[in-house]
Amino acid sequence: MSAAFDNLRQQLKRLPGLGHRSAERAALHLLVTEPAALPALVNALNEAARVLRRCSLCGNLSEAALCPVCADEKRDPARLCAVEHIPDLIAFERSGAYRGRYHVLHGKLSPVSGVGPAQLNLQPLLDRLATEPVDELILALSNDIEGEATCHYITQHLPKRETPLAVTRIGFGLPSGGSVPYADPGTLKNALESRRGYA
Amino acid sequence: MSAAFDNLRQQLKRLPGLGHRSAERAALHLLVTEPAALPALVNALNEAARVLRRCSLCGNLSEAALCPVCADEKRDPARLCAVEHIPDLIAFERSGAYRGRYHVLHGKLSPVSGVGPAQLNLQPLLDRLATEPVDELILALSNDIEGEATCHYITQHLPKRETPLAVTRIGFGLPSGGSVPYADPGTLKNALESRRGYA
Repeated sequence: MSAAFDNLRQQLKRLPGLGHRSAERAALHLLVTEPAALPALVNALNEAARVLRRCSLCGNLSEAALCPVCADEKRDPARLCAVEHIPDLIAFERSGAYRGRYHVLHGKLSPVSGVGPAQLNLQPLLDRLATEPVDELILALSNDIEGEATCHYITQHLPKRETPLAVTRIGFGLPSGGSVPYADPGTLKNALESRRGYA
Repeated sequence: MSAAFDNLRQQLKRLPGLGHRSAERAALHLLVTEPAALPALVNALNEAARVLRRCSLCGNLSEAALCPVCADEKRDPARLCAVEHIPDLIAFERSGAYRGRYHVLHGKLSPVSGVGPAQLNLQPLLDRLATEPVDELILALSNDIEGEATCHYITQHLPKRETPLAVTRIGFGLPSGGSVPYADPGTLKNALESRRGYA
């Protein structure tokens, strides 16, 4: 229809979750249905790009050198939770179940995709374990082969420490609200393996 | 996490098809996963907002005063197809089944939503029918009560003309590839009503 329209649709299509048709709908929404949303989106994009950077300690998004979690002195410095991506951190924060700190790896080891240790935020994690008063490292990585490989790599490269470090991995099994007949075989295998004493 | 991040997520969430989680994913994609996509999107938005306007004749998006369809002298001026929205026009163009011209109403009559004739691009359609050499007006509006009401309004307000004007409405029935047991009762009713002689 127009080069400018095609380019906008193309750029919107690069966003995760938007296909060809939904990118077209979004472009038309911004140009026709709600034109006031377009400059607001441009401003939000420019402002976010201007002020947001990575937390120098954990890799989370942050407006300051330290992200709100790292800067919060009420967070428990004895627990460090390693996650793959920032949305994982956001999901744990949303759960309200965790009061320790985080380290975002920005991925997991994947030789087939060319992701080795150097491509991840891994060495800074090992450095933090050498210097920070961490008692427990919680590995909150994916329940798949690449998550497993990343956990294994970390345990093989833990720094020498004066104090002991417990390394744990988050539980695997039936999700909240899940029922046995709908669970896949891998989940049921995990659930059996991680059974616990009850009553 | 940050006011700038929250605002970007909020603006992305205004796009059709993006909910809270997918807006968050899109924001993180632009800020973390593929930062080069952010300025490209900003440029595409600014450029589209700068160059695109409504076609002065039919209401389609256009970089010039007349959109490519209206400016194309090879399109049949005897057929005019009224559609609700620009994506409808794009869908017909994609089908390759139509070589006439369009008129985009930018909606349909909906008293409960406060959409009356004055809120639509309706009077310009009636003006076109009075002055252009149109032989057939094709009503390609929704198969619902509001689409029906809009069609009725148009037929009640047709201008006086020297030459006759045929008014048609697009066919309703089983969609391409559809089979009877999966069709809803309304579709089957439409399909029966619009049955045609065969063999």
